[in-house]
Amino acid sequence: MSNRPIAAIILAAGKGTRMKSDLHKVLHPIAGRAMLMHLMASVDALDPVRKVVIVGDKADQIEAALSGSASLALQEPQLGTGHAVQQAEAALTGFEGDVLILYGDVPFVPTATMGAMIDRLNAPDAPAVVVLAFEPADAQHYGRVITRGDRITKMVEYKDASEAERAVTLCNSGLMAVRAADLFALLARVTDENAAKEFYLVDIVNIANADRRTCAVVTTDPFDVAGINSRAELAAMESAWQARRRAQAMAEGASLLAPETVWFAWDTHLGRDVLIEPNVFFGPGVSVADGVRIRANCHIEGATIGAGCEVGPFARLRPGTVLGEKAKIGNFVETKKAVLGQGAKANHLTYLGDATVGAGANIGAGTITCNYDGYFKYQTVIGENAFIGSNSALVAPVKIGRDAIVGAGSAVTRDVGDGELRLVRGEQLVKPGWADRFHDAMRKKKAAEKGAK
Amino acid sequence: MSNRPIAAIILAAGKGTRMKSDLHKVLHPIAGRAMLMHLMASVDALDPVRKVVIVGDKADQIEAALSGSASLALQEPQLGTGHAVQQAEAALTGFEGDVLILYGDVPFVPTATMGAMIDRLNAPDAPAVVVLAFEPADAQHYGRVITRGDRITKMVEYKDASEAERAVTLCNSGLMAVRAADLFALLARVTDENAAKEFYLVDIVNIANADRRTCAVVTTDPFDVAGINSRAELAAMESAWQARRRAQAMAEGASLLAPETVWFAWDTHLGRDVLIEPNVFFGPGVSVADGVRIRANCHIEGATIGAGCEVGPFARLRPGTVLGEKAKIGNFVETKKAVLGQGAKANHLTYLGDATVGAGANIGAGTITCNYDGYFKYQTVIGENAFIGSNSALVAPVKIGRDAIVGAGSAVTRDVGDGELRLVRGEQLVKPGWADRFHDAMRKKKAAEKGAK
Amino acid sequence: MSNRPIAAIILAAGKGTRMKSDLHKVLHPIAGRAMLMHLMASVDALDPVRKVVIVGDKADQIEAALSGSASLALQEPQLGTGHAVQQAEAALTGFEGDVLILYGDVPFVPTATMGAMIDRLNAPDAPAVVVLAFEPADAQHYGRVITRGDRITKMVEYKDASEAERAVTLCNSGLMAVRAADLFALLARVTDENAAKEFYLVDIVNIANADRRTCAVVTTDPFDVAGINSRAELAAMESAWQARRRAQAMAEGASLLAPETVWFAWDTHLGRDVLIEPNVFFGPGVSVADGVRIRANCHIEGATIGAGCEVGPFARLRPGTVLGEKAKIGNFVETKKAVLGQGAKANHLTYLGDATVGAGANIGAGTITCNYDGYFKYQTVIGENAFIGSNSALVAPVKIGRDAIVGAGSAVTRDVGDGELRLVRGEQLVKPGWADRFHDAMRKKKAAEKGAK
Repeated sequence: MSNRPIAAIILAAGKGTRMKSDLHKVLHPIAGRAMLMHLMASVDALDPVRKVVIVGDKADQIEAALSGSASLALQEPQLGTGHAVQQAEAALTGFEGDVLILYGDVPFVPTATMGAMIDRLNAPDAPAVVVLAFEPADAQHYGRVITRGDRITKMVEYKDASEAERAVTLCNSGLMAVRAADLFALLARVTDENAAKEFYLVDIVNIANADRRTCAVVTTDPFDVAGINSRAELAAMESAWQARRRAQAMAEGASLLAPETVWFAWDTHLGRDVLIEPNVFFGPGVSVADGVRIRANCHIEGATIGAGCEVGPFARLRPGTVLGEKAKIGNFVETKKAVLGQGAKANHLTYLGDATVGAGANIGAGTITCNYDGYFKYQTVIGENAFIGSNSALVAPVKIGRDAIVGAGSAVTRDVGDGELRLVRGEQLVKPGWADRFHDAMRKKKAAEKGAK
Repeated sequence: MSNRPIAAIILAAGKGTRMKSDLHKVLHPIAGRAMLMHLMASVDALDPVRKVVIVGDKADQIEAALSGSASLALQEPQLGTGHAVQQAEAALTGFEGDVLILYGDVPFVPTATMGAMIDRLNAPDAPAVVVLAFEPADAQHYGRVITRGDRITKMVEYKDASEAERAVTLCNSGLMAVRAADLFALLARVTDENAAKEFYLVDIVNIANADRRTCAVVTTDPFDVAGINSRAELAAMESAWQARRRAQAMAEGASLLAPETVWFAWDTHLGRDVLIEPNVFFGPGVSVADGVRIRANCHIEGATIGAGCEVGPFARLRPGTVLGEKAKIGNFVETKKAVLGQGAKANHLTYLGDATVGAGANIGAGTITCNYDGYFKYQTVIGENAFIGSNSALVAPVKIGRDAIVGAGSAVTRDVGDGELRLVRGEQLVKPGWADRFHDAMRKKKAAEKGAK
Repeated sequence: MSNRPIAAIILAAGKGTRMKSDLHKVLHPIAGRAMLMHLMASVDALDPVRKVVIVGDKADQIEAALSGSASLALQEPQLGTGHAVQQAEAALTGFEGDVLILYGDVPFVPTATMGAMIDRLNAPDAPAVVVLAFEPADAQHYGRVITRGDRITKMVEYKDASEAERAVTLCNSGLMAVRAADLFALLARVTDENAAKEFYLVDIVNIANADRRTCAVVTTDPFDVAGINSRAELAAMESAWQARRRAQAMAEGASLLAPETVWFAWDTHLGRDVLIEPNVFFGPGVSVADGVRIRANCHIEGATIGAGCEVGPFARLRPGTVLGEKAKIGNFVETKKAVLGQGAKANHLTYLGDATVGAGANIGAGTITCNYDGYFKYQTVIGENAFIGSNSALVAPVKIGRDAIVGAGSAVTRDVGDGELRLVRGEQLVKPGWADRFHDAMRKKKAAEKGAK
């Protein structure tokens, strides 16, 4: 690729009305990450010197999401895509390099494709504009790109196209690469003399053509330039992304019993010989080592799962969960900021929050770490090979020693020493015959109630 | 639409043998409601003066489902669709209006389509019979409707159809609109001179045609007249219904991460900016306000969920659940007849039944409302901003005051006052070294057992 | 079918590199059973006198899976399919019958198809070789079977095929039936004079043809001979198998609300009028009687479910679960080696392990059977109509009598007699105003922390 500096202009000023959402369209997530941030990550891999996001509606949301990683330029009022790009001119003052024009709602443009556009811009024939095009299965009403070789002879809107032009299947994605110097000079010549009274970015191609300057096309996979305008398209893109990710997971050596029911996040890492049963949801930040078995109906976010672990069914691992090798998390168990040592087990109906569990420890069914007093969170530390009896409450901050045993049903409020037994037990009240008398009385009451009706 | 009175005859006498069920076919549910009741609701929107359901097998089940909302007429023996309609004659004595003929196993005929049939019946050319027809993707062996304009020239069974007739793609749904006076007069002329020795309703069209009376066709979407004869068709219709409902939810501003794994009931209400993760099941009677986030793997029935709530993953809301604004129900939590105030939280492993929870209250992990003594149910009332420590059992009837605190692991059997701390604790027995000795003994026992093998 | 003895040679020596797995390819499960074992079961139904599995890589895994039910023959090095079959010669010494040649990664060949191959081999024209062929939707690069009637005139690899031969849609599955005497004689004449320098089994057909001996074809459904080479193909086969099983379940009288989200095991047995909500996973060993309702999100393995039971949502039944008629297992409940009597109920947040529960008993929410001490498992026995209060821990071994009542929140360590009430309660500590003072102090602390930032 060329060594000239790169800038990116990302259009994100549209109202996204069809989303019917208080959240800006480009901040809706796919695979657990806002669309805009998917795109920014791909841009960042090109090491751009400037990034300008054109904003309009809900600009504060965009600003918060970017948290300083790009400049913002406000487009107000919104007079078309050409007008939008013009708003970046101030932010690009003094920039002498290549500009990529991207769209916040076209999130999955590969870095390689962006690179190819830049490369084409820097080819010996020095085109004024490089347009990214694609060939959809159904070209519908997309604008057509009329070419000779890879040179563009004409950009034409569908509604203005002749029959012959409509028969062309190469469509305009709207993405472009243009030298900064050319970009704003060309844009200055765009007019709004059209039905919508808007300044169209695409017009710069025909203007450059009129100057007898080269305009070149680069083509890409339709998936790469799919735009999102409604929640249905959002769901469809999520589905397409997931299908690709599942295929990749299987190709790399994971078994997905029902691939269509496994949802990955953008950064999920899976080892080899990982077995995933149906209906497993990965939020961001999950790493799964080799040989792990994830049973059905698990919900996993921000967790590191060591080799040979068994998780689920019905497990929920929340952020900060770290499972050592061959640890086991069973059904109806929730972990949060919980670090389990090798071979530690929590098999049933348990909540481990703000906890450290030593290797080989066994957490009985129904154990709860009481980590919260309504104001602050506290730590529970459980030693190696400790055994926590079922239905126990460990009231943090508390430490259970190595090899210690906590009796079933205990609410432990003070530390338990190594190798110590701690039992918290109430008095056993035995009332022979009481239950028989209770049953008799209640049956009579039930019968009386029925009789009264 | 015409102002003439309307009656509906709904055929539901068939045995539904292919369902292999003890439940009457038309009572099998789709989207949480019996097929027959879907149809009755669409009929009711026309404000009919009489409704007659023709029953045969399992008539008692139909009677119970209708609970007096329609007349029943028994068809015994069952000699065909024409014979079935004739059984309604007594119930329609004195009725002088328009009759719709519908089928209990064709549940999704829109009210508008029924209205269009009635309108056509009342058009100036006064047809004797209006037939509802459709154009399926694959016309298969359906009976064909041969037309000139919207007039029917012939109804023909597939097996009797000529090649030219088979090439016609307009098919008979079986639904009709006929004036009451015409209906029974025409039916009286239908014979059973056919291979099956049955009286076919469709024959009234050809009889009316022979009288040179107009018979007209109204067409509709195949989905609207799809009939259900097997469990596979039931599942296919459920799937088609769900697909439409999901699309509607997204169009109205809900995000469905994996739409194909969200199941709505017929009456589910969703606000705007509702986010639904994969695998959420809505039973009947659910209303979800704006900005609610429903995480994966939830099961929700009869619940009202306030704005900004977060539910799940792995939550089960049962009938009578009402969540105030920004309330939270977390993983492995079940609620039933539970009313939570604004911002109240029950995040983990909890059962709230027959309970009222004040605004801002925090229900600790593992809390159980003990609402049942084997005979009767009792109420638990928790005050505003109360804090219920983890693993507590609240033995109803019981009242926890505002700002009160219940210590972890407590079984609370008496009311707790406002601002009061209630702790129920057993004696802490400490046995240093006991666990070490236990481990030694058990390891020896294990080793001995292995040695013995 | 012929009465001649049958032997089966199963090829399973391939490395299965594309699986990227430490588990032998043919041991990867479909519908809860290793592919190889599906195939062996179909073979066993023919009552073969000998079975020889050809192994190479990971032979120890195959040996363990077969546990003596078949002979093993090592192929080392691996010089092609013909060479693989030759390795069975020693194991078949003295065998004078018909040999079926099968593939461990082609697991779903029906017994009837194998029988048809044997029958064809024993027809009056006494073919030397019977080849199983199929007509895939897309013949791709499969080897073609050129026939006249059911006689094979030529077997041809796709790459060697003429245009006319490629137009033939009948493809070679690789499966064959051959008389033992013929098989090894023909194989001895196969050479490795080809690009891959391998001995191809298929060459015996052309050799027999050259001898003017009959070679006959038997055709079958493509599903029956689908081979599995990658995790994606494994998932696709699982999906195809499940689709067939779901259709069968519905045809036999079960309602699947969302069939595509129900996963059966190879041996799942379902009664009539079973209703299954979305997302239910059956592991091996499950039998469900008539009229059972399985609600959403259940995970069921090794369980016998009696007539009229209700299970779930969110229930996990593990091996050894036996539910009597009309028993109920509700949400977030796990059972393991648990036998429940008629009408017994465990509706919420419960673990029943190594337990017997009498008819009519009610297990309260949050009940845990403490069946494990870290070394051994112990039994809990609960009598008929007993009532276990919520949040109780039953410390096994322990016996609760008939009609007995255990108070909520009790840790029961000693047997409870029939009709007896057992309450284990700590002291109720009441501290009026304590919570108010605590809230004040904590709010100040929070405010101070914020001020410090």
